Amino acid sequence: MPQPRRRDPDRLLPADPHTRAIARGLYQRVAGAPIVSPHGHVPVEWLAEDQRFRNPADLLITHDHYVTRLLHAAGVDLERLGVGGAADPRAVWGLLAEHWHLFAGTASGYWMEEALDSVLGIEEEIGPRTANLIYDRMAARLAEPEFTPRALFDRFGIEVLATTDDPLADLAHHDGLRASGLRVIPTFRPDRYLDPDARDFRENVARLLAATEQPATFDGYLAALEERRQHFIEHGAVSADHGVEDPLTLDLAPEEAGRLFAGVLAGTADAHGRRAFRAHMLFQMARMSVADGLVMTVHAGVLRNHHTATFERFGADTGHDIPVRTDFVRGLRPLLERFGNADGFHLVLFAVDETVYSRELAPLAGFYRSVYIGAPWWFLDAPDAIGRFRAAVTETAGFFRGSGFIDDTRAFLSIPARHDTARRADASFLARYVAEGRIALGTAERIADELVGPLPKRVFKL
Amino acid sequence: MPQPRRRDPDRLLPADPHTRAIARGLYQRVAGAPIVSPHGHVPVEWLAEDQRFRNPADLLITHDHYVTRLLHAAGVDLERLGVGGAADPRAVWGLLAEHWHLFAGTASGYWMEEALDSVLGIEEEIGPRTANLIYDRMAARLAEPEFTPRALFDRFGIEVLATTDDPLADLAHHDGLRASGLRVIPTFRPDRYLDPDARDFRENVARLLAATEQPATFDGYLAALEERRQHFIEHGAVSADHGVEDPLTLDLAPEEAGRLFAGVLAGTADAHGRRAFRAHMLFQMARMSVADGLVMTVHAGVLRNHHTATFERFGADTGHDIPVRTDFVRGLRPLLERFGNADGFHLVLFAVDETVYSRELAPLAGFYRSVYIGAPWWFLDAPDAIGRFRAAVTETAGFFRGSGFIDDTRAFLSIPARHDTARRADASFLARYVAEGRIALGTAERIADELVGPLPKRVFKL
Amino acid sequence: MPQPRRRDPDRLLPADPHTRAIARGLYQRVAGAPIVSPHGHVPVEWLAEDQRFRNPADLLITHDHYVTRLLHAAGVDLERLGVGGAADPRAVWGLLAEHWHLFAGTASGYWMEEALDSVLGIEEEIGPRTANLIYDRMAARLAEPEFTPRALFDRFGIEVLATTDDPLADLAHHDGLRASGLRVIPTFRPDRYLDPDARDFRENVARLLAATEQPATFDGYLAALEERRQHFIEHGAVSADHGVEDPLTLDLAPEEAGRLFAGVLAGTADAHGRRAFRAHMLFQMARMSVADGLVMTVHAGVLRNHHTATFERFGADTGHDIPVRTDFVRGLRPLLERFGNADGFHLVLFAVDETVYSRELAPLAGFYRSVYIGAPWWFLDAPDAIGRFRAAVTETAGFFRGSGFIDDTRAFLSIPARHDTARRADASFLARYVAEGRIALGTAERIADELVGPLPKRVFKL
Repeated sequence: MPQPRRRDPDRLLPADPHTRAIARGLYQRVAGAPIVSPHGHVPVEWLAEDQRFRNPADLLITHDHYVTRLLHAAGVDLERLGVGGAADPRAVWGLLAEHWHLFAGTASGYWMEEALDSVLGIEEEIGPRTANLIYDRMAARLAEPEFTPRALFDRFGIEVLATTDDPLADLAHHDGLRASGLRVIPTFRPDRYLDPDARDFRENVARLLAATEQPATFDGYLAALEERRQHFIEHGAVSADHGVEDPLTLDLAPEEAGRLFAGVLAGTADAHGRRAFRAHMLFQMARMSVADGLVMTVHAGVLRNHHTATFERFGADTGHDIPVRTDFVRGLRPLLERFGNADGFHLVLFAVDETVYSRELAPLAGFYRSVYIGAPWWFLDAPDAIGRFRAAVTETAGFFRGSGFIDDTRAFLSIPARHDTARRADASFLARYVAEGRIALGTAERIADELVGPLPKRVFKL
Repeated sequence: MPQPRRRDPDRLLPADPHTRAIARGLYQRVAGAPIVSPHGHVPVEWLAEDQRFRNPADLLITHDHYVTRLLHAAGVDLERLGVGGAADPRAVWGLLAEHWHLFAGTASGYWMEEALDSVLGIEEEIGPRTANLIYDRMAARLAEPEFTPRALFDRFGIEVLATTDDPLADLAHHDGLRASGLRVIPTFRPDRYLDPDARDFRENVARLLAATEQPATFDGYLAALEERRQHFIEHGAVSADHGVEDPLTLDLAPEEAGRLFAGVLAGTADAHGRRAFRAHMLFQMARMSVADGLVMTVHAGVLRNHHTATFERFGADTGHDIPVRTDFVRGLRPLLERFGNADGFHLVLFAVDETVYSRELAPLAGFYRSVYIGAPWWFLDAPDAIGRFRAAVTETAGFFRGSGFIDDTRAFLSIPARHDTARRADASFLARYVAEGRIALGTAERIADELVGPLPKRVFKL
Repeated sequence: MPQPRRRDPDRLLPADPHTRAIARGLYQRVAGAPIVSPHGHVPVEWLAEDQRFRNPADLLITHDHYVTRLLHAAGVDLERLGVGGAADPRAVWGLLAEHWHLFAGTASGYWMEEALDSVLGIEEEIGPRTANLIYDRMAARLAEPEFTPRALFDRFGIEVLATTDDPLADLAHHDGLRASGLRVIPTFRPDRYLDPDARDFRENVARLLAATEQPATFDGYLAALEERRQHFIEHGAVSADHGVEDPLTLDLAPEEAGRLFAGVLAGTADAHGRRAFRAHMLFQMARMSVADGLVMTVHAGVLRNHHTATFERFGADTGHDIPVRTDFVRGLRPLLERFGNADGFHLVLFAVDETVYSRELAPLAGFYRSVYIGAPWWFLDAPDAIGRFRAAVTETAGFFRGSGFIDDTRAFLSIPARHDTARRADASFLARYVAEGRIALGTAERIADELVGPLPKRVFKL
């Protein structure tokens, strides 16, 4: 007889009884607050079409590269998990169940349990013996009308959800959702049109120019980007997102930029030239954000597709994007020299190199008006990492120079758990400051309230 | 009716009751110990002239770029805070009060409250409603004879206070203070005469050579520096302080150094040459410290004046000096190869890149006789950061290879609070080691006593 | 009357009573488990010859550069400690006793106390007053038959102990030990034959080629290395260990590699060529490990022999090997592209730059099948550092992508204390996760059991 898990209502709160009591009170204030999700990767089609989820494995495993990577490391081939092809979903779930012990202590394991328990109401311990039982229950739940994407959107209490979209997307789905009362907004994500080393870069630029009927000049290219940004703004977008390995920016003279553009388009630019072009385009994105008001978010410091053979066979987002050291201070200086204090400009910096929190991000955000410290991201949106983040930035920059939590996920069922995790972690941090006599309880309460709604809404202009 | 704050006597101590009790005992041993402040930025004129402080805003806000930067980030222009010009002090205080919530959890906020409470005896919560009330009380206090610089110097229990001074300073004020029984000692700070990229470098060198009647040769330049160091020693200095972006050192042959000197003086040296010159001069400063006994302190890893427009309008120290990654191990190797174990040489290394604590500073200080680990500095002299520092270095280097706390501040009213913070943080750290059975209580007591007096006095040769 | 220490049975466990109770239970499960030591530096002769230890100072101080370095930093010359020559052992012990306060809070100090107390049964406080008394007791103990290396090996409960050996070692001692029932296995450590900048590199290669009767070609050199690896495998080795300053790897074409080999052998290769050769040889070592099954361990990020004068006078391992920043992500990419998921290949990565734990090692080990996160090493195998390590990697990679603890030591008497420290630290970490409701107690118990035996045995193929 599989034993039901019993979720500890005080989970993730600090062990010291006095601090825990304070943390519990702070958490309870915000536990039920609506979810503000200004950056994520849920496919808009899910909500627009509102079809039932295909099956539990497809929803919970196959497309979650946080989960597939650990199974891959344990020797499970990605194709057996349905990555890049079809696989029997029950067998896929069975593979996770068989390796479930590997997820103990991980964020992914925690979210999986939360999704099963809090969303699907399944309390049995995951494991080989319960694999079929749990699979059947999950499948049954997902067939119920209460478990369609929109029904869950309502049940999760999502106030606003941002998707991440290709600049050429027509965004009709977002319009449709708006018409039916769901605030699901697009995000402009132009990386593949800006980075000469992106796959199919030249074809992408050609499509961009064709779609906007712009000439193949640097000015035409900029105008095309501006036009598509405008299209996004008209369809509800509030931000433009940029994923870069290195947050380098360069303020080039127009002639130099034009020359580089011609080179990258002709495929003749060398590595140095391609890097300079990329850096100048990040600068240009800031210029456009200052002009059109889109919040600029930068997710920096990830070397994408580390294992080329896996990338070539299975594509991007298959578990081997690896963080690298990041230098925001020198890299962003040209951008910040020019736009760092520009009126209304919001620049949110996300890092996966924890060393930048106290050394770079908190000091930058403590001076530049545009700079907000992005919430812990990717591998770092987990309880301990969130605690380290808060400890690293608060003494320098306080609580009001942060972005508020973003879930950054495609794993729809985990969205409540991710926001709940952040709320518990922030309550725990605040409680320690109260217990140590550093802030008053009333102050902590006001901050806890701020962090889950007003703050991210201000930062993301929602 | 504004509510008075009630300062928690156990503030900053750990929440666990048993550990807290130990920490309280350790703290109480040292809470009242005299303040040894071997590095800081209080203007010597304040103490020499002993005039009343001009007004609360000038004293607590305008010149404290820890405070003005967060207000700037929040949209308050620096000129409204009196930076680089005049502003109505009551209005300046009002701006802080209006934005006071931004300082919750920050070190600056904590020190401001401590200054108001412990120094000025004002217990009301800072905020818009209390702004005028508090301002009036502060102004009244500062007009009282008990609140002149010297009266506070006595009340704070300052045993010795080091200022930071230009190499050409005559140091007459220090002599005068010594004559009247206050130990206020100068510190030799030659950056602007050593760094070819410093503003007015060539004019500075010309003034240095003129003042010492030395010829414009490299030997003359070295002799000039040596002469001024001697002047400082004769007027009570115990240390020479060096602020560098990169702690690179180079041991160059005399001809090479002479050639570079000619180049930087003629303005013809390229970036590479200027860097080499700077690195060689850091090496020369070590050589001189070995010879004349001045403790060498190096504050490394800060990119100064990140936002050029602000620097040009408002000058240096206006809130946008930003830490960068630092490499002490390779950078200092030439210096340490030559002088690292030299008799009587003390080299105190201060960092704002926390990653160097366990990786570089503790291992270096655990071997080289000259090397002492500088206390957490700048953004890191706050409770959590001090705890991280202790945890990062202690297991490798123990408690006796550190410098002892330095306040590094111009914010005179915050000096007791800063030292008190360090004492509480160290007591908390020691208490945990006692609670975890790692050191005996008696050992912790002896260490706590050491850290606040005997240790910094030995390291700084006081 | 010197006071006996009373070792706290709960030492190193967290202070919070509830968490401590959980930690105590977890610790007690594994406190008596056999010691698995898959990487270390105990001289095989000690066990093979089983002679009594020469004297306490030689055993506990002179050859432990963790200990001598702190005494050196305090001004004690290495020769007075017997380094590189003879010294009166009682006087050496006296020097430690005199400076004992410097070791408070350090890992070395903790291990010394543990060795005295738990191994030698000496409970007096170390210090000048007890120096002679303790020395006499230690000497008496070491003269007893219960204190020979083999007797202690049994008493320590060592199940398997790996030594670290020169590729040309005949390994006869290991055979003899195996015959007498002690599992003491060799480890292939070829650095000095791979790194053109190693002292006597060319002579080393010549000896290697001569011993294997291989020609002085790159193919002959590779064959010689393969042959010696085979020799090690035949004598029980399970791993090959590589110490590098920079974990750079390069996959060079055979002609290019051959050309570089000729250059490094002729002494004509420049720094760039020597670096490329070293990087290619690390790649070749992976290729060989894939072929012959030896676990590949990489200890990266240490600048050896920082102080050249000390190295020249006293040799290597004299306390001034200093960690430097390390980049595993780009450095190892060529190796991982090719072998990262190879069947049966185990690559254990040890770091002394803590920043790589969350940024690089956990993400790499969370995808690549070959990659295991090496336990905290060198300066980091101490309680707080182990806690930071667990917190940095667990949320990303769980508990099963680590190597299990290695003691990496020559300090034979400290081996039980080092493993005990890791067990207490891991129990403390697991207990916190239980107290915070993140993992069930039963899960924590299974993990605690795994970490001390099954896990390192799997990773090291024992």
